[in-house]
Amino acid sequence: AIADEVEEQLAAQNGAKPLEGQHILITAGPTREPLDPVRYLSNHSSGKQGYAIAAAVARLGARVTLVSGPVALAPPKGVDMVNVETARDMLKACETALPADVFISVAAVADWRPSISANKKLKLKDEGKTLPALSLAENPDILATISKKRKNRPGLVIGFAAETHDVEALAQAKMKRKGCDWIVANDVSGDVMGGAENEVSLVTRDNVEHWPRMDKTTVARNLANRIAVALGNPDGQQLAAE
Amino acid sequence: AIADEVEEQLAAQNGAKPLEGQHILITAGPTREPLDPVRYLSNHSSGKQGYAIAAAVARLGARVTLVSGPVALAPPKGVDMVNVETARDMLKACETALPADVFISVAAVADWRPSISANKKLKLKDEGKTLPALSLAENPDILATISKKRKNRPGLVIGFAAETHDVEALAQAKMKRKGCDWIVANDVSGDVMGGAENEVSLVTRDNVEHWPRMDKTTVARNLANRIAVALGNPDGQQLAAE
Repeated sequence: AIADEVEEQLAAQNGAKPLEGQHILITAGPTREPLDPVRYLSNHSSGKQGYAIAAAVARLGARVTLVSGPVALAPPKGVDMVNVETARDMLKACETALPADVFISVAAVADWRPSISANKKLKLKDEGKTLPALSLAENPDILATISKKRKNRPGLVIGFAAETHDVEALAQAKMKRKGCDWIVANDVSGDVMGGAENEVSLVTRDNVEHWPRMDKTTVARNLANRIAVALGNPDGQQLAAE
Repeated sequence: AIADEVEEQLAAQNGAKPLEGQHILITAGPTREPLDPVRYLSNHSSGKQGYAIAAAVARLGARVTLVSGPVALAPPKGVDMVNVETARDMLKACETALPADVFISVAAVADWRPSISANKKLKLKDEGKTLPALSLAENPDILATISKKRKNRPGLVIGFAAETHDVEALAQAKMKRKGCDWIVANDVSGDVMGGAENEVSLVTRDNVEHWPRMDKTTVARNLANRIAVALGNPDGQQLAAE
């Protein structure tokens, strides 16, 4: 119903490219945090949702920079790709791509990395008789870093939150903590990881909308439309939600 | 030159399927060792080399079981696929697939896994003010387990060793430690991971052959031919190496 409403608003624009002139920066996929040349710590992420959003906003006329971790997907048409491995490289690539009008953080960024990263393959067994432990260092928080920029803070910053429980409550807490404007929260307790469908809630400052389960390209189109409405009209977000 | 020699020997068989009647069990791809529903520890592995070997031995008439970790490749034609995630599942799938005449362990099996695997996404930050450490548990050694079986030990057990330094020395040590018959050692200090080419040495009990850099399908074809010669003739391995 929300999607229909937004589609109607956009249809009223008569096939124009409502995101023309906007630069939208998107991250997608996982990051890989090397322990040594063969081992890494990572997150499940096919990249499908982020790539679908990049394609959807490009179709509405935006100039898109897609900063992507390693995935098995073809780059969407008409999108500037930047391929990265680690969270630190992803942040650097995002900062290089600024300024942007919208930042959408879809990537499943590893929040922790091995605190050592060896140049040679580690022989863990040789290192002591005790069971080894992998000490971790905290990665930069890309969403919070971009959200809290004084200079070049995009006008609309959107985060994704993959949660297995208390999805909406954790999303609202995350939005406050990170300083972003919207959160697309998805419940990954089922089998959406890597699948073609997603079930999300769009959490804004003063609203939570639960979207029914739909395929990731539809989630992407709906979100692209919502962004177009929000950018075209300062009250768009509220209008569309009613 | 070795490849030519082996091809000649096989050509002499007049287009027969020299591996007909043989069951070849192959592992390929990485394993993923979950820390929680979103995070995992893994190894770099595209699965290309293992899938190419599965296709090559199937083409020579073998019945092939391919036990594969998560990769972005289509299953080779005429191969029985078993898809797994963790090292423990991979071992179970291999044991279920026995008996086999040949076992080829190409998978980049994670030798360590997080010693806890949570059902809920861990909030690492909440768990203490100190930097977290990921405690690790040792995974079963699939190659050694299959090599040392008393019952159902395949007649020819072949391991792969990805090393960044001292490649042949480490491969020979690995062969003794694991109890396998051949090791295909590859030097991953360059950029072969995920690429189309590979540069390997075939290490047998009494010989080391360095093969020049070639594409992974050629490595696969050469290895398949070597296996056919070895199975067809107890001295085949020695013959081909001279």
